[in-house]
Amino acid sequence: MINAKGYAAHSKTDALQPWEFERREVGADDVLIDILYCGICHSDIHQVRSEWGPAIYPIVPGHEIVGRITAVGANVSKFKVGELAGIGCMVNSCQHCDSCDHGQEQFCDNKQTVWTYNSRDKDGSVTYGGYSNKIVCDQHFVLHVSDKLDLKGVAPLLCAGITTYSPLRKWKVGKGHKVGVLGLGGLGHMAVKFAVSFGAEVTMLSTSPSKEADAKRLGAHKFVLTKDPEQVKSLDRYFDFIIDTVSAPHDYNRYLQMLKTDGVQICVGLPPEPLSIAGNSLMRGNRVLTASSIGGIPETQEMLDYCAEHNITSDIELIDIKDVNTAYERVLKSDVKYRFVIDLATL
Amino acid sequence: MINAKGYAAHSKTDALQPWEFERREVGADDVLIDILYCGICHSDIHQVRSEWGPAIYPIVPGHEIVGRITAVGANVSKFKVGELAGIGCMVNSCQHCDSCDHGQEQFCDNKQTVWTYNSRDKDGSVTYGGYSNKIVCDQHFVLHVSDKLDLKGVAPLLCAGITTYSPLRKWKVGKGHKVGVLGLGGLGHMAVKFAVSFGAEVTMLSTSPSKEADAKRLGAHKFVLTKDPEQVKSLDRYFDFIIDTVSAPHDYNRYLQMLKTDGVQICVGLPPEPLSIAGNSLMRGNRVLTASSIGGIPETQEMLDYCAEHNITSDIELIDIKDVNTAYERVLKSDVKYRFVIDLATL
Repeated sequence: MINAKGYAAHSKTDALQPWEFERREVGADDVLIDILYCGICHSDIHQVRSEWGPAIYPIVPGHEIVGRITAVGANVSKFKVGELAGIGCMVNSCQHCDSCDHGQEQFCDNKQTVWTYNSRDKDGSVTYGGYSNKIVCDQHFVLHVSDKLDLKGVAPLLCAGITTYSPLRKWKVGKGHKVGVLGLGGLGHMAVKFAVSFGAEVTMLSTSPSKEADAKRLGAHKFVLTKDPEQVKSLDRYFDFIIDTVSAPHDYNRYLQMLKTDGVQICVGLPPEPLSIAGNSLMRGNRVLTASSIGGIPETQEMLDYCAEHNITSDIELIDIKDVNTAYERVLKSDVKYRFVIDLATL
Repeated sequence: MINAKGYAAHSKTDALQPWEFERREVGADDVLIDILYCGICHSDIHQVRSEWGPAIYPIVPGHEIVGRITAVGANVSKFKVGELAGIGCMVNSCQHCDSCDHGQEQFCDNKQTVWTYNSRDKDGSVTYGGYSNKIVCDQHFVLHVSDKLDLKGVAPLLCAGITTYSPLRKWKVGKGHKVGVLGLGGLGHMAVKFAVSFGAEVTMLSTSPSKEADAKRLGAHKFVLTKDPEQVKSLDRYFDFIIDTVSAPHDYNRYLQMLKTDGVQICVGLPPEPLSIAGNSLMRGNRVLTASSIGGIPETQEMLDYCAEHNITSDIELIDIKDVNTAYERVLKSDVKYRFVIDLATL
């Protein structure tokens, strides 16, 4: 077994603290990665605190992982020792169903998607995430990472990046489209960068006037204060797409009404409470409401390659791992621009 | 002015009764149609009874109209006297906005869509519908009707037909797709006919075992009783599309769960109450919820031409106009296969 160090929570009320544990040996299809950086996703906090159902403790969170490969198994052809690599939200799946065959491992038909942490692998072992110095993973779920980009800013691409890239690609967002991005956080700031890069006119929709300068710096063409009824009114039937990154309850009908005929509201954050949707919000203009969850492995690779080619990374604040609990408190106050990334050299 | 006869309600509690009124003169862009048949749409009942807001009384309902042209204005090039013609839900719009220019007059950007009855035309006059012997209409909103089809069964195509045809075309439903049709009524039976004609595998989803034989006769390949949990369970992630024709409140999440990854639920009927949608119903499988309202004039013509080519009409029960009030009571009990059509020769 491989000795690993990390930070773990041991119950839903515990702070994260140093923990030593074992990773499995490097199997024939596995790679071993020395983790360099790991992003902090809001979902880490939900899971550490058992807010999405009971967690498997001890829990080592983290699914925005970049590092360097230090060993490969006998069957590994995809990677060589010394290469940079990334791991996102998944580390396994059945690998032979229709969804897996079509690169949608997150929707494995056999319900065998194995999440990077707080999940059970196919052998029954518990998965541990990226707040750690090492990780062993089946090569299929490991991504190539370019050395052209600042690695620290690459880590959040593995979740926040693919989560926004995937629906923008599915719906073919690009030149000539007007896109509204609702909420400027980890997901929102990536949605702005991608939509701008794809050629769309991008409007940041925010409740906070203080975000205007940053939205513009990230590339947004317009900024609309959603607390101002006049500004909101000017957006009646304005957008082709809205990327809704807000996971707190909010009025979906208000934003659906900003869509043109055939417009699409894509939720990448969702509250636990059911959405209340007026039939007319959809019927008037044949509008579309959808949601999108991460993206499959081939598309994640496509996204990383696109980012390398277009010099796109996440805006981050680098922290030492001892500050992870403070970082959590700041995430909950939306006090981060726009993703905390842990420097695992500090472990 | 042109003297017309029809059936009208004079208050929201009145039965429909004979009424004589005037239509406008045939203007330069108008055609005059002698109405032969008019379908009864459930929305006629809602409007006659002021269930969708206060109606403009007297109200002459009817927006599934076929007849023969008996006069044309000086500018009319699209029609000749003696030709068959149809009118659906709209009789006017601004005719120069982006939506109108793109054949989506039902979503006129200037909010000048004029409905066939219970609406005000651009000159302020009230519109009266097809429970009448004559109608005058701008040629742009008049459709060519083939003499190859049984005219009685063509009338409901002008609303029930286009309402189901349009979203099936928008979403490119065809060979290789699995389509569920929820509810077997006026809309549902047309959805089955079109989806089958487009090459999809069609499953009728119904609460009533008595509908199985008819669903199969209409072309449905499968029938699933939605009251049977075992049968419902077999549909987990089964469909590419669901056409939801039910306007009574029901559990949308149950049907969303029947959709594959990227599957689409298209509502062509909607309850007045807001829909309660669990975020996960959309997020799992990146599913899509949408609604669709009738269709524009060019697409309505395309649908009529398609029906003429493929011998598609609505299944109807022909009634005398004196029986319209009885027909309304039967519509409310879903006791019609599948559309009442009024023979205006009986007026």
